[in-house]
Amino acid sequence: MASGGGTRLKYRIVKCTSEEPDYPVTELLSHSQQTKGWQTARFCEFPQEARLGALRGGSWFGSEFLRADACFARLSSCDGALRRGSEYQSACFISAIVCCLGAMSEKVKIGILSTAAIVGKVLPGLKHGMEVVGVASRDRQKAQDFCTTHDCGVGMLYDEMLERDDVDVLYIPLPTGLRNEKIAKAISRGKHIYSEKPMGGTASELSELLKLCEEKGLQWMDGTMWYHSLRTKEIEKKLSGGELGQVLRVSASFTFMAPDEAWLQGGNGRTDKSREPMGCLGDQGWYPLSAILWAFGWTMPEKVMCTHVTLNKVDTIVQCAGTLWFPGNRSAVFDCGCTSPHRSQYEIVCEKGTLRVDDLVGGQQRTGNFAAYEVPFVGSAEYIQGDVMGKDQVVQVEACDHVNMLVDDLASCIKAIKAGGKPDLDWPRRSLSVHKVMSAVFESAQNGGIAVEVAN
Amino acid sequence: MASGGGTRLKYRIVKCTSEEPDYPVTELLSHSQQTKGWQTARFCEFPQEARLGALRGGSWFGSEFLRADACFARLSSCDGALRRGSEYQSACFISAIVCCLGAMSEKVKIGILSTAAIVGKVLPGLKHGMEVVGVASRDRQKAQDFCTTHDCGVGMLYDEMLERDDVDVLYIPLPTGLRNEKIAKAISRGKHIYSEKPMGGTASELSELLKLCEEKGLQWMDGTMWYHSLRTKEIEKKLSGGELGQVLRVSASFTFMAPDEAWLQGGNGRTDKSREPMGCLGDQGWYPLSAILWAFGWTMPEKVMCTHVTLNKVDTIVQCAGTLWFPGNRSAVFDCGCTSPHRSQYEIVCEKGTLRVDDLVGGQQRTGNFAAYEVPFVGSAEYIQGDVMGKDQVVQVEACDHVNMLVDDLASCIKAIKAGGKPDLDWPRRSLSVHKVMSAVFESAQNGGIAVEVAN
Repeated sequence: MASGGGTRLKYRIVKCTSEEPDYPVTELLSHSQQTKGWQTARFCEFPQEARLGALRGGSWFGSEFLRADACFARLSSCDGALRRGSEYQSACFISAIVCCLGAMSEKVKIGILSTAAIVGKVLPGLKHGMEVVGVASRDRQKAQDFCTTHDCGVGMLYDEMLERDDVDVLYIPLPTGLRNEKIAKAISRGKHIYSEKPMGGTASELSELLKLCEEKGLQWMDGTMWYHSLRTKEIEKKLSGGELGQVLRVSASFTFMAPDEAWLQGGNGRTDKSREPMGCLGDQGWYPLSAILWAFGWTMPEKVMCTHVTLNKVDTIVQCAGTLWFPGNRSAVFDCGCTSPHRSQYEIVCEKGTLRVDDLVGGQQRTGNFAAYEVPFVGSAEYIQGDVMGKDQVVQVEACDHVNMLVDDLASCIKAIKAGGKPDLDWPRRSLSVHKVMSAVFESAQNGGIAVEVAN
Repeated sequence: MASGGGTRLKYRIVKCTSEEPDYPVTELLSHSQQTKGWQTARFCEFPQEARLGALRGGSWFGSEFLRADACFARLSSCDGALRRGSEYQSACFISAIVCCLGAMSEKVKIGILSTAAIVGKVLPGLKHGMEVVGVASRDRQKAQDFCTTHDCGVGMLYDEMLERDDVDVLYIPLPTGLRNEKIAKAISRGKHIYSEKPMGGTASELSELLKLCEEKGLQWMDGTMWYHSLRTKEIEKKLSGGELGQVLRVSASFTFMAPDEAWLQGGNGRTDKSREPMGCLGDQGWYPLSAILWAFGWTMPEKVMCTHVTLNKVDTIVQCAGTLWFPGNRSAVFDCGCTSPHRSQYEIVCEKGTLRVDDLVGGQQRTGNFAAYEVPFVGSAEYIQGDVMGKDQVVQVEACDHVNMLVDDLASCIKAIKAGGKPDLDWPRRSLSVHKVMSAVFESAQNGGIAVEVAN
């Protein structure tokens, strides 16, 4: 079809499923006062879409598309023009949206505050979706060596990184106990925050940090990769769309076996409370707890109980299980830790059906492929949906790399802010909700398994 | 191979995997003072087996086999000669075992105390493995009509049934609240007991009934069909054999949706506490609770908690969930009821792997086939075993009809008693263990979800 361009981004229209004669899709190629925008054909069946191919580095990409659902139009998978889920009440607005695509094409610049192991999994995603300026450490040479080995910019000291004006966002995978201080400094220097999980400090401390971000118009996002897969987004839509009715019960687990006794007894960050205060509850427990809250649409539980807990020789949680009470007599159970075989799963029981995923964290199905946690991996391509009678179907979803998806979502948020928008507050809310619930479970664990109410 | 005969049962040897020249398998065909019996070849790899084909009604069946494991020989799937799992310390005993096959070939005679709906599922199994003498009811004509319709003997009054000398065992599917009185009478009349579940009365009352059975040399078995499938027996062997290490955590569920509001609000036996005192905890909860105790090798939990419970308009439990604490900080969770979609499953997490079944009660896989609960069904043909790294394999098992298997197991017990043996006390122990745990969960449910200790 025809081709055209925004302010800076070149694009053409690749596909259009229907149009009204007075509002043809080619309207999207012009950006004058007279532009009327695209409208779908009257009485068509929804959804309808117009797909845009954008020119990047001399090649055409076709991932941007405009989707029209009834009277709404939505821009998805775009190059950063709009935040996830933004909706417009008339298809007439679409020309304006396409206009701003151009201004958004510049890459977001990220700095990394640590040479931690997680960087090996995340770095390829950062490179894919952003420009990596460099890596900071307490030791400039160590940072530089890391950058040389991994081809990721310039090594520098922490404070040097914070002072750089060409860094939009900081990726902060420092140990949980050390992270908040660096985050506070980064916020004060006007940096967007990409923080690893679990959260450090008390829920109030975290709440303060998040409030600062919001006040300064900075985006916050934690490193929960599975939120960002296409599978998660499809299930999220199913849950919020109401076709399955209310969520009644969720079970979620993330466990794997410590590789050896030294690892189990404090030899790893997860099993040493000086580095990870909540131990394996903090590390592995983040997944089932976040999955439970996500499944319940971020409704908070009324109370939680850590029913079972095992400490290692250095007094750190290596295994725990618990129960959550949700409003309306709805329930959830979780377990996590490094003393049992590898399980990474949730089951969501709704009024009208069930949803099951058994590769929550890594997307590698039940293959036993541990490398999916350590290097880039494209997966999360299916889930199981059961009907009320207990008949299952395996639902296929487009496979993706969680990390790339996270980085894309974060870049979109930051670009939208640069274009005059506000931070997407859904992401910091998720971090705070999981941290509140996790802190309550930890309090229960430390007090013999009492029920602990969760502050809303 | 050669053919021969016991006292009354005709059999031949169909297959033999190895033999010592001085102890050939044909020894099994003679029963004199000089008979030496069969021995496997020296230095063979175990197991070895000799399979016997028995003549019944003019046809040869091949299900009996003698299995030799190292220095043990064992007679399995036999026509009632020996109880499940009996072991003999020398292969030389085998000729004597085969001898007694003959005496055991007469069919066990059963009477049915009720025309309840469950009979439609169970009756074909009773006919398959026993001789059905008749059905008793408060109303002789109703009983006779049932017998005529279902071709199952003679209709009679309860007391008439109890007085009959040609009835070995009574199947008692009466409502839970009415059952114990009839059971007590049946025991006093020297009848073996096949009782539907859940159990009625207190744990002490049940304990008294079971003690009476034992004193009178009577077999007790409850109607938990899934215990008897080949799948269950294979998994049982895996769990007790130690290859998976200790059981750490079990999750089990049995739920299905009430067909309509009237059913939910007391219109069914399960939802009306005057008929089923523990409601859906009693009815559906029996499955996850029995699966949990079975998985833990009948180790009793230290305490239990009913964390969530929903009552209907007639004050009967229609949904509940809970947690169990097992020795060694090991855990289990369950949920049951008629307010959510059909799920019938357990997950057993062991030190060295996981086991998962998602058609616990009916064996129909995740097909949504509800008829499997109402008519004869051949299934339970697979389960999923995961290794410590989280790699799953689907394990295939020979399909079977749970009910036939239960009736065969019960008939074997009764025949063994008739041949001079004692009751198999494993079955009453299971009934009592589940009833104790269920009663504790019920106590918790009635007291706001407090933790309740379980008497051992």
